Amino acid sequence: MRNLTLLTDFYELTMMQAYYLAAETGHRQDAVFDMFYRENPCGNGYAIAAGLAQLIEYIENLHFGDTDIAYLRSTGVFDERFLSHLKDFRFTGDVAAVPEGTVVFPGEPLVRVRAPLAEGQFIETALLNIINHQSLIATKAARVCWAAGDDRVLEFGLRRAQGPDAGIYGARAAMIGGCYGTSNVLAGQYFDVPVRGTHAHSWIMSFDCELAAFQAYANLYPGACILLVDTYDTLKSGVPNAIRVFQAMRAQGTNLTLYGIRLDSGDLAYLSKQARVMLDDAGFSDAIISASSDLDEHLITELKAQGAKISLWGVGTNLITSKEYPAFGGVYKMSALRNNDGVWIPKIKLSENPVKVTNPGVKKIYRLYDAASGKMKADLITLADETLTPGEDLTIFDPLATWKRMTLPANTYTVRELLVPVFVNGECVYEEKSVMDIREYARQELNTLWDEHKRLTNAHLMPVDLSQQLYDLKQTMIAQLREE
Amino acid sequence: MRNLTLLTDFYELTMMQAYYLAAETGHRQDAVFDMFYRENPCGNGYAIAAGLAQLIEYIENLHFGDTDIAYLRSTGVFDERFLSHLKDFRFTGDVAAVPEGTVVFPGEPLVRVRAPLAEGQFIETALLNIINHQSLIATKAARVCWAAGDDRVLEFGLRRAQGPDAGIYGARAAMIGGCYGTSNVLAGQYFDVPVRGTHAHSWIMSFDCELAAFQAYANLYPGACILLVDTYDTLKSGVPNAIRVFQAMRAQGTNLTLYGIRLDSGDLAYLSKQARVMLDDAGFSDAIISASSDLDEHLITELKAQGAKISLWGVGTNLITSKEYPAFGGVYKMSALRNNDGVWIPKIKLSENPVKVTNPGVKKIYRLYDAASGKMKADLITLADETLTPGEDLTIFDPLATWKRMTLPANTYTVRELLVPVFVNGECVYEEKSVMDIREYARQELNTLWDEHKRLTNAHLMPVDLSQQLYDLKQTMIAQLREE
Repeated sequence: MRNLTLLTDFYELTMMQAYYLAAETGHRQDAVFDMFYRENPCGNGYAIAAGLAQLIEYIENLHFGDTDIAYLRSTGVFDERFLSHLKDFRFTGDVAAVPEGTVVFPGEPLVRVRAPLAEGQFIETALLNIINHQSLIATKAARVCWAAGDDRVLEFGLRRAQGPDAGIYGARAAMIGGCYGTSNVLAGQYFDVPVRGTHAHSWIMSFDCELAAFQAYANLYPGACILLVDTYDTLKSGVPNAIRVFQAMRAQGTNLTLYGIRLDSGDLAYLSKQARVMLDDAGFSDAIISASSDLDEHLITELKAQGAKISLWGVGTNLITSKEYPAFGGVYKMSALRNNDGVWIPKIKLSENPVKVTNPGVKKIYRLYDAASGKMKADLITLADETLTPGEDLTIFDPLATWKRMTLPANTYTVRELLVPVFVNGECVYEEKSVMDIREYARQELNTLWDEHKRLTNAHLMPVDLSQQLYDLKQTMIAQLREE
Repeated sequence: MRNLTLLTDFYELTMMQAYYLAAETGHRQDAVFDMFYRENPCGNGYAIAAGLAQLIEYIENLHFGDTDIAYLRSTGVFDERFLSHLKDFRFTGDVAAVPEGTVVFPGEPLVRVRAPLAEGQFIETALLNIINHQSLIATKAARVCWAAGDDRVLEFGLRRAQGPDAGIYGARAAMIGGCYGTSNVLAGQYFDVPVRGTHAHSWIMSFDCELAAFQAYANLYPGACILLVDTYDTLKSGVPNAIRVFQAMRAQGTNLTLYGIRLDSGDLAYLSKQARVMLDDAGFSDAIISASSDLDEHLITELKAQGAKISLWGVGTNLITSKEYPAFGGVYKMSALRNNDGVWIPKIKLSENPVKVTNPGVKKIYRLYDAASGKMKADLITLADETLTPGEDLTIFDPLATWKRMTLPANTYTVRELLVPVFVNGECVYEEKSVMDIREYARQELNTLWDEHKRLTNAHLMPVDLSQQLYDLKQTMIAQLREE
């Protein structure tokens, strides 16, 4: 496993040194940090949390090796006492997080870290890097899969991903978001997810003619024979040649199960409709028509509206980079601090922009569901020591427009706490799940949303409210700071 | 080093198996592939090639380990004979490429691979992944640095990068594109480039008041003391407290060399001008004002136009993801094929779109410079066996509008071949350069462009022409294929 301990911003280390040296003189601080985001990617109505497994790996593997320490020494910025501390560094704090695949909303903590200040601070950069990336791609994939409806979506983007990891972990996140498989073999090996793919234009070009190329492919892979038909001329050459090959296979008694064509250029609506007629007329009505040409959720929606006869979608660049919105924007903010005296002090970061003022204190998230339909009603962020009882009426309100209120009568709703323990005193207590299990969990999560929350544009926004206690704490702290 | 051998699309392996099995029966094919791109990122006038060092690492390290072969076996798609071939797989071909840091243009081969078909095909996906990513970020960084003019730009994007590699290799590419340093410590360690950073808002929040936080920081890091001034109120609290600390440092006889403030929110034009006045009035006219708040080349240009007093720019998300254009779009196309008979056959891929028709044959690139100014005139793609002599008149023409012609009189121009050998018969012959040396080379490359090619919008396009021989070959092949 790569040592990613130095995968961090330099300032995490300069701050860490200061905290360590202060702790030497007896000034020990513990801190709570929240990782949250402020805006759903791509105008979506929700995000899907992903990356926790890699965050766990990163934290468990944290250690400063001799070469790391030698490198830090070479910068001339670090004290030998600090460098010597680093030799024994490990993460000793608590982490709680929403499980991977959970539907989440802006403003709520996806990860909560309680640790000695130096440790909690140090893991900020890598934590954000990992969770931001995978949550972004999982969310984008959920959009693409939503557009594809009952059709299958394959992740095909490795060649356009932003480096190897973006391909590998992007494929993982795309599976969590609902893709059916990936072209990425290394992701298949790492995460035990289906890999798919057939051949490229170069395959066709390496033969004297298209028909010979198709025949050779069919001979070798009769059980998964999707032929790429656009190298020379899709309707005049590619589809007729594919039909000839399918006819020959059938004549030889081959059991045609998974077979068909792939369109990779041109007018996909027109070509797919024409190809469908040609395949049907030749008696190949179960032949798959797949497509893969700069697709995204918008183009898939349009193609479906035009009646395109495509049932398998290979989505590359736009998915693996989340092209229209390539950064998730998660942040990591201190919410409480405990000095030597043992008392937790809530912390807040002000901003001129009201939605950018952070929520102070140690918090948790309750998700509220309608008891009758099982659909989600709202999320409620509370202080960690509050308890919600579904047996009581519950009034919630929009913290930025407090006149927007809703009362849930007793026993008409159910509650669920979203944050679960991941590390306790530095020990991982989280049970790892397979990517395919996380994918299934995400599918169930999405089932708790009405379609209005899942549509691609102008999605209905889920309320994320604050408990009265948390709201009051926040208002008091803002007023105090404004006075100072 | 990670084994990235399986970092590939599944179809590379299904094709490879077919090529291997065909070779067993004596049908051996060699192929030439070109990697090129079709559109400059972000509407730029050029791109900067990057990633070659990682491509070399990848190719040198290619091998199928036992677990890789076991995994491939588990897919049920591969023949034992093929899997047994893979045990001995290594790359035995030739690679030529433009050196990292070279200014390049659409349509010209950045990498040319000649190898047994199975090998040349197999490396496609990882090659594209690596070169696409780093060329994208190097180009974006060059734009940001162009906007910053003589000011320094720091790469600050790790937390928003698309996974660890996007941060690490993105930082590398950003340095090649002209950044002065990065916040990414691992990139600093790997590539021996300057790392920079001071402290976060959480530093300020971990103290009882901002002044105490500044004092503590200044005590620890007097030699590089950039104070973050926007945690509570930039002009009422942050800048006055910073000035107090600088005054105390000066009073104690500290040699104030690298010191100043960082703005991370708010109206950067207004705040920087006000802060400049306050710092100057207090006698700190050499204090640096740095900024880091969702910056990109456009915002930097606007801030400079508004007279913002910022001389150090920390650029994060928009640089590390190339946010407005997050995929480079490089492709890898077969351009020639040699069967058992030993004759190279040029290959072409047609398209309805004229710019998407590939250039056939084994090619090289001549760069033409004006002898007097040293500035670039054009690139000319020729067949590999053509030779250009600056002692002769040279007429070049636009291959899509052949009436656009230009004659360079003998001895008014100089020429340089861009593609240099990287692998010969599977052995690396390329001398590795340090990232800082590549950065300097890229700077010199940019000096051969007029400003009109470097401006951010509506950049003047550099001609990339075809030699008469290559043009004729292409037209003949198109006509032949259209007839068939």
